[in-house]
Amino acid sequence: MSLVGCHILSIDHFSRQDLEELLMTAKLLEPVAQRKVRCNVLDGSVMANLFFEASTRTRMSFHTAFARLGGSVVDTTGFTFSSISKGESLSDTARVIAGYADVIVMRHPDQGSVAEFASKINVPVINAGDGIGEHPSQALLDYYTINNEFERLKKNIDGMTIAMVGDLKNGRTIHSLAKLLSLFDNIHFRFIAPETLRAPAELLELLRSRGHDVQEFDDIANGLPGTDIIYATRIQRERIKDGELMEGYSEKFRINAAAVARYATPETIIMHPLPRDSRAGAFDLSTDLDNHPQLAIFRQADNGVTVRMAIFAMVLNVHRGIESFFSPHRGFRPDRYGQGDADFYQLK
Amino acid sequence: MSLVGCHILSIDHFSRQDLEELLMTAKLLEPVAQRKVRCNVLDGSVMANLFFEASTRTRMSFHTAFARLGGSVVDTTGFTFSSISKGESLSDTARVIAGYADVIVMRHPDQGSVAEFASKINVPVINAGDGIGEHPSQALLDYYTINNEFERLKKNIDGMTIAMVGDLKNGRTIHSLAKLLSLFDNIHFRFIAPETLRAPAELLELLRSRGHDVQEFDDIANGLPGTDIIYATRIQRERIKDGELMEGYSEKFRINAAAVARYATPETIIMHPLPRDSRAGAFDLSTDLDNHPQLAIFRQADNGVTVRMAIFAMVLNVHRGIESFFSPHRGFRPDRYGQGDADFYQLK
Amino acid sequence: MSLVGCHILSIDHFSRQDLEELLMTAKLLEPVAQRKVRCNVLDGSVMANLFFEASTRTRMSFHTAFARLGGSVVDTTGFTFSSISKGESLSDTARVIAGYADVIVMRHPDQGSVAEFASKINVPVINAGDGIGEHPSQALLDYYTINNEFERLKKNIDGMTIAMVGDLKNGRTIHSLAKLLSLFDNIHFRFIAPETLRAPAELLELLRSRGHDVQEFDDIANGLPGTDIIYATRIQRERIKDGELMEGYSEKFRINAAAVARYATPETIIMHPLPRDSRAGAFDLSTDLDNHPQLAIFRQADNGVTVRMAIFAMVLNVHRGIESFFSPHRGFRPDRYGQGDADFYQLK
Repeated sequence: MSLVGCHILSIDHFSRQDLEELLMTAKLLEPVAQRKVRCNVLDGSVMANLFFEASTRTRMSFHTAFARLGGSVVDTTGFTFSSISKGESLSDTARVIAGYADVIVMRHPDQGSVAEFASKINVPVINAGDGIGEHPSQALLDYYTINNEFERLKKNIDGMTIAMVGDLKNGRTIHSLAKLLSLFDNIHFRFIAPETLRAPAELLELLRSRGHDVQEFDDIANGLPGTDIIYATRIQRERIKDGELMEGYSEKFRINAAAVARYATPETIIMHPLPRDSRAGAFDLSTDLDNHPQLAIFRQADNGVTVRMAIFAMVLNVHRGIESFFSPHRGFRPDRYGQGDADFYQLK
Repeated sequence: MSLVGCHILSIDHFSRQDLEELLMTAKLLEPVAQRKVRCNVLDGSVMANLFFEASTRTRMSFHTAFARLGGSVVDTTGFTFSSISKGESLSDTARVIAGYADVIVMRHPDQGSVAEFASKINVPVINAGDGIGEHPSQALLDYYTINNEFERLKKNIDGMTIAMVGDLKNGRTIHSLAKLLSLFDNIHFRFIAPETLRAPAELLELLRSRGHDVQEFDDIANGLPGTDIIYATRIQRERIKDGELMEGYSEKFRINAAAVARYATPETIIMHPLPRDSRAGAFDLSTDLDNHPQLAIFRQADNGVTVRMAIFAMVLNVHRGIESFFSPHRGFRPDRYGQGDADFYQLK
Repeated sequence: MSLVGCHILSIDHFSRQDLEELLMTAKLLEPVAQRKVRCNVLDGSVMANLFFEASTRTRMSFHTAFARLGGSVVDTTGFTFSSISKGESLSDTARVIAGYADVIVMRHPDQGSVAEFASKINVPVINAGDGIGEHPSQALLDYYTINNEFERLKKNIDGMTIAMVGDLKNGRTIHSLAKLLSLFDNIHFRFIAPETLRAPAELLELLRSRGHDVQEFDDIANGLPGTDIIYATRIQRERIKDGELMEGYSEKFRINAAAVARYATPETIIMHPLPRDSRAGAFDLSTDLDNHPQLAIFRQADNGVTVRMAIFAMVLNVHRGIESFFSPHRGFRPDRYGQGDADFYQLK
């Protein structure tokens, strides 16, 4: 299978071979993401960025990725779509927009609605999140990040141990990444959550049926030791009914400098899909880790652009030989204003 | 007359010669709209897309058209314009924005406001709809569609019969298209609407004064037989007071497969400006016609991009010799990912 | 000092040498702003246009400036930022967006928030207004306008007299421009405002400490005679509590044709940052001056694009030798559709 011309709706569609092709393409595009070369391979093409639900960061990441490949982006934000409010079916809307754009990125609050939209048209649709459903590009950038970090540490994904911590019930990121990793061999999954926010039984079942080691914990003290990756998540307060929110959710689930010093190894990678909740009463990933060398959260965010570039390139079939479209920047060069190379991505 | 440097405010300004020049330009630009060639003739130019009223589809269509010619688009959506809420006159706003953009597309809920805005500045303004006023690019794309369909069927616009069905009182599309067609010879207009939603008397008067045959019907059974084109429209619920809505509006006005089979010929073209109302209780164009070969509604929507390209090209005076700006796509080629040629525009 | 790679947060950071370099760069870019040549020096770069507060005009001006240099713009408007509403710190938001964009333009209702955002990242941030704080690009375009007008009139900024009229308490434009002009020698400042809207004492102190002549008036009859520049401003109704609004604010502060004829010289330049308030009961700059040859208000607005181009060019270090990136327009040429040259910027 190849991703050429495909809708990217769910991580379920990906084979291990697809992942490897994506990885290779993303690596090729790394210098473009880092502004070292320009690549106008998508010059003349148009992407429709349809956000039926606000997600500024994801919208900007897709927009940037498409723009850095030379394409134009038509944005749509806001909860209403004027034609739909006049009684238009999603099918008609899809068909009309397919006449404008060469590829469509879509986010919608309702699970399944992006797939329904995509089913009506040939123009490739990329799911940028459909409620508690899927958000495949997030799982792909997580995978790309793990791969990069492991290359640096000379580790293998096969056989690794990953601890997923926090709201494992509502966090679609966790579900998608776990499914993606299940394509590898002999992963040790450690799910750490309060009773009310445990991962869905079907997910655990699926992972076990593929031969992986799956354990559940209700405390990081028991779940963290020996892990290669700690993947923390935010409590999805907006998807939880008020009463059940804080029950059982406490310091026992907070990843901070003390917990990492005590339970993790010096090589344990710390990840989080962001945003993290910095409000009082949240036990999200702590800022006292912000200078930790294995904290990969901002590298994850940066990798989002690279991976989304790779998705566009593969879906639009310009990934093979894409280096032949690389050229030096004309005038603009980040390294000329002190933004080049590694420290471009660093906090001051 | 020529459209170079002109405001495009109303279909009233168009002569038959203008229409022919537009047709020719649109035909030339067809391969660009179909992504077969690129054309960066407007590279370096900026369009301001000012929507004081939401209309995602129209906004996207203009944006796409300008982007495919190589220009940059500055978008503004939403019902408020911050400077106007601080007491700025429309004249000052117009003057300031004229300093940013090379061409302005504007939609506004109030009839006449786009013309008022345009009257203050030299930068060309294209009316994208002003309340119950005008929406000239819609009439032009309808005309372009009719022309394409008739070429296929080897028919002439002069002497043809067109049935317009639905809300003929509030639908500005109907008014503009009828006025445009009145530039041709000997058109047979058949207006089919309930008593409460009849076409304005002044419009009928105008058409008759130009020598056309105008008849009114209150039932498709009487009005449809023998027509070359059926042009259905949505009931503009948002412009109608609640009480009068459903009075007299019934199945008698619904265009569906049964009605077409019974009253139309195999060559009768079926059109609709979209969106169509798919909610229960609406008697809009039925989806059971979606596979009908003469259903032109999605071709209409697609033609919107082509015709708006042609408008930009003519207004900005780049239409003559525009083919010399055509060049092969660099990397992006729709046919490479299965989106090329005819079926690009088809439903799956 | 040089502006390369710098945040542009406040006019306080500018030296007289910076101003001269900006002036020179803006002058170089004038033909690009006037669409006489194209300049794609920023091809391949991305600007994030973050507006946490609506300001359509400022947003469009920055967007246009970046687009005319060949860059892509990712827009964000609206009062909420979805990640922040999920509890994300401004620091995390800054860090993530720094991974997408090569330069960030930001407006925010809270004084100091843009500087806080900028302090977290290396990517240059340009303050497009933070509440009653700063709006440096406005002061710079005012300075550029004064310089252009004075060149025409063969006048010097050193030693000149400027009258600032209106809401001197809340108008940050006034504060920034006064501070900028204080870098020159021997300026005569005349502040004309009702008792309730007087300029802050600290500002007057600062100007005096730099050796300038500072006088206050409560009537244009006394303050206007002998000025080289009249700088009028709008009453910032949205920043004033209702009760105190009109107190003392009257015809005595209105700049209109009669006042100018009576108190000004034929060479007195009339400026205003726009928007001006045209509602009944406002005593803002009058429209009866719209054909006055020394009225510079629309030239100010137009200069906004030129000066913002210069800011981008300097911050991104492409200003030296930028002429080598100039090239003729391919197809688009404003003079071909009657928009060229001087009258491009004129009201009809």
